[in-house]
Amino acid sequence: MEAEAEWYFQEPITRQPAGPWTITQMRTRWQRDQINGLTPVWRNGMPSWRPIAELPELKEALREAVEEERPPKRRRTLEEVPITHTYTSDEGQLYMAAAFCEQFGLRCPVIMAPMAGSSPVALASAVASGGGMGACGVLAMSPEQIAGWAAGFRAAGGGPLQMNTWVPDPPPARDADHEQRVRDFLGRFGPAVPSAAGDAQPQNFDLQMEAMIEAEPAAISSIMGVFPEQWVRRLQRRGIRWLAVATTVREAQAAEAAGADAIVAQGMEAGGHRGAFRAERAESELVGLFALVPAIAEAVKVPVIATGGIGDPKTAAAALVLGASAVQVGTALLRCPEAKLNEHWAEALAQRPWPEDTAATRAFSGRLGRSLRTAYVQAAEAPDAPRPAPYPVQRGLTKPMLRCSFAGPGEDAERRHLGGHGDGLGGPGGAAGARPPGQGGCGGHLEWGEGDP
Amino acid sequence: MEAEAEWYFQEPITRQPAGPWTITQMRTRWQRDQINGLTPVWRNGMPSWRPIAELPELKEALREAVEEERPPKRRRTLEEVPITHTYTSDEGQLYMAAAFCEQFGLRCPVIMAPMAGSSPVALASAVASGGGMGACGVLAMSPEQIAGWAAGFRAAGGGPLQMNTWVPDPPPARDADHEQRVRDFLGRFGPAVPSAAGDAQPQNFDLQMEAMIEAEPAAISSIMGVFPEQWVRRLQRRGIRWLAVATTVREAQAAEAAGADAIVAQGMEAGGHRGAFRAERAESELVGLFALVPAIAEAVKVPVIATGGIGDPKTAAAALVLGASAVQVGTALLRCPEAKLNEHWAEALAQRPWPEDTAATRAFSGRLGRSLRTAYVQAAEAPDAPRPAPYPVQRGLTKPMLRCSFAGPGEDAERRHLGGHGDGLGGPGGAAGARPPGQGGCGGHLEWGEGDP
Repeated sequence: MEAEAEWYFQEPITRQPAGPWTITQMRTRWQRDQINGLTPVWRNGMPSWRPIAELPELKEALREAVEEERPPKRRRTLEEVPITHTYTSDEGQLYMAAAFCEQFGLRCPVIMAPMAGSSPVALASAVASGGGMGACGVLAMSPEQIAGWAAGFRAAGGGPLQMNTWVPDPPPARDADHEQRVRDFLGRFGPAVPSAAGDAQPQNFDLQMEAMIEAEPAAISSIMGVFPEQWVRRLQRRGIRWLAVATTVREAQAAEAAGADAIVAQGMEAGGHRGAFRAERAESELVGLFALVPAIAEAVKVPVIATGGIGDPKTAAAALVLGASAVQVGTALLRCPEAKLNEHWAEALAQRPWPEDTAATRAFSGRLGRSLRTAYVQAAEAPDAPRPAPYPVQRGLTKPMLRCSFAGPGEDAERRHLGGHGDGLGGPGGAAGARPPGQGGCGGHLEWGEGDP
Repeated sequence: MEAEAEWYFQEPITRQPAGPWTITQMRTRWQRDQINGLTPVWRNGMPSWRPIAELPELKEALREAVEEERPPKRRRTLEEVPITHTYTSDEGQLYMAAAFCEQFGLRCPVIMAPMAGSSPVALASAVASGGGMGACGVLAMSPEQIAGWAAGFRAAGGGPLQMNTWVPDPPPARDADHEQRVRDFLGRFGPAVPSAAGDAQPQNFDLQMEAMIEAEPAAISSIMGVFPEQWVRRLQRRGIRWLAVATTVREAQAAEAAGADAIVAQGMEAGGHRGAFRAERAESELVGLFALVPAIAEAVKVPVIATGGIGDPKTAAAALVLGASAVQVGTALLRCPEAKLNEHWAEALAQRPWPEDTAATRAFSGRLGRSLRTAYVQAAEAPDAPRPAPYPVQRGLTKPMLRCSFAGPGEDAERRHLGGHGDGLGGPGGAAGARPPGQGGCGGHLEWGEGDP
């Protein structure tokens, strides 16, 4: 294929055609992150523009070049952006966001949060086709399920995509007596908990990583730690960006040093699980997004994605003012019809409690997460309640209780709700067809579905 | 004095002269909050403009009118501001901030935090003369000290001023055995703690309120609850605004219902003490500023002042984007020369640790506050440490330890530092002559001086 200049491609953002290029020129652009699998290309004889990822011959030619020739992945840093990184320049903020969009093939700097159990293809696809980045939280999915999800996403139109799983903790210390107390306690809120419930094993991390890489998303994100070095190299060789969730400045610095392409700064407002690298520090190192984003933006050179409490254009704008290049939205997307929540749950979301109605709790999985302060959470916080078992033991133990209340509204259903401080209005720039919002409000919350962690 | 139109006054913000007015016209303006004790006035024969507060005859005439005729204080609500309350309009945000400035006689929407023990006249005065609102935290001051401080402030030029004290908690439950354990524990960090140390009494709240009202600041702020109704009426009759600190949406709603003129939304990032109305809920209802400001702005009609994590123009701008009409700055002001910190302490401030280096702790006073995670704080958080006694018992018990380490740098000095997540750059719009900043950074922290609570 090393022939004349014949390839045309579309510029990111503007979608203007450019070219023609030779394969060698394409390789150079690929190595510089200026084009990727999502870039639409065309040459004489093709009926229409198609993304590189759908042209096996071309993709292989470019990928070979990368696998063989590419130096350790070049990070595009803010230093290379010809603007001053300061709030005083509106142009500067917009340029940072635009540079981020260009790097990831987005039309707006909005990323769907990878909510395990709550990222159906339809929702990710709606976000991606709206110009943002779709997401899939694969935590509870087998490699086959991951491949199936990815195939469904491509069939639905594909586009920019983030996939995510947890970096494993060391094996938990088991304590049969304590687990018995937890089982007895949980039996007050659901059926009796079988003694083997705590033995439930999470999916195999390495197999999940293989499956995600084969799916070729634009990005794979880490949470609860940094990816081991061999996986970082694999991602780099395949041209997949690594987004690293950090809950403190030092975690962000560690992730950057390990090769992360961007930091997802997770404020204490975020729903779902906290990304603390060391589980035991999760409570004592809670940092609000308002302080975390400017501090991380100062401490690292890679772009910062803000998450936690962002659910409408106002909060997204504030995050950019604080120094973020993009925002990640979770809870607020769940009211979109594409999230396919059941009717009862969608209505519960619409009630939108205040931020103080949520609580940081280990009661669901053993890892700290943010949840509505339901009757179960309150009981679990009481001094006489047994402290939750470590992850994933607690997750296994709570499964019978959570399963038993999946159908309906009311107190039973409320037990299931993990959720953040985010405003429940959203939809990324109108991408995902949000339900008509009310007067605004804080405290959307997300449900952990069948595949909950 | 009911003579011809003879009084001229200066317009807020622009400082343009207007008039002449009769006393009756002045009274109408006074009742409408269009002028107040800080408004400069002049009439034929006076050598220069002087604030109304310094003209006893005029002040009495206006105040009588207010005491007698004034209906329950009229709050200026956002509904009366002829703009849409939405982030999409930059003009809208600026208008909200400008309306707030006009209402309080400010040139920039920046309010000094009333840091008990750390609000010297020089600092408050620098902030006020720079166009912001100065502050005095009177918590540990006697009525005489309050009057003296106010006289000093007026002598230094006066200007917009906030004063603050804590709404008292119910008397604490005492436990001699437990206090003994706390005393033993504290003895590891300082001199032996006398058995009477826990008996220390706070200043009398009612006398402090009287003294503050006599000082006629533009505003008196509440924290740890709402002011009792009789004090609210007194403030209203005297034309003193009530700023109510709230840490949750429901606290903000309660304060508005009780007559607060503005809500100070205190994010979990804030240094010093948390304003939780119910002490026992302070830990479980920590809300980040990023979620708190938009939620409160939606829930109340009075203006919202954001505080916690704000220390430079970037964070101030982000707070306005989130829906605040003004910002309150604490930690970041302490590096100004006017704060008169000792050399060692000023250098310690310049180290600016990351947000995760601070911790929410009751170890200093028994009330939850944010502090550097020093060796003492870490020891107090350990599972084997006795939990802190209730306020004000713990405050009394820790005093010997804190006093013993006032002079120098190092570990001893570090024990004293309560502090927030705020960026240590600041100074309100350059008002207070900040020391040359470094490259930015998060984690300024404040010291509780001799008068610490």
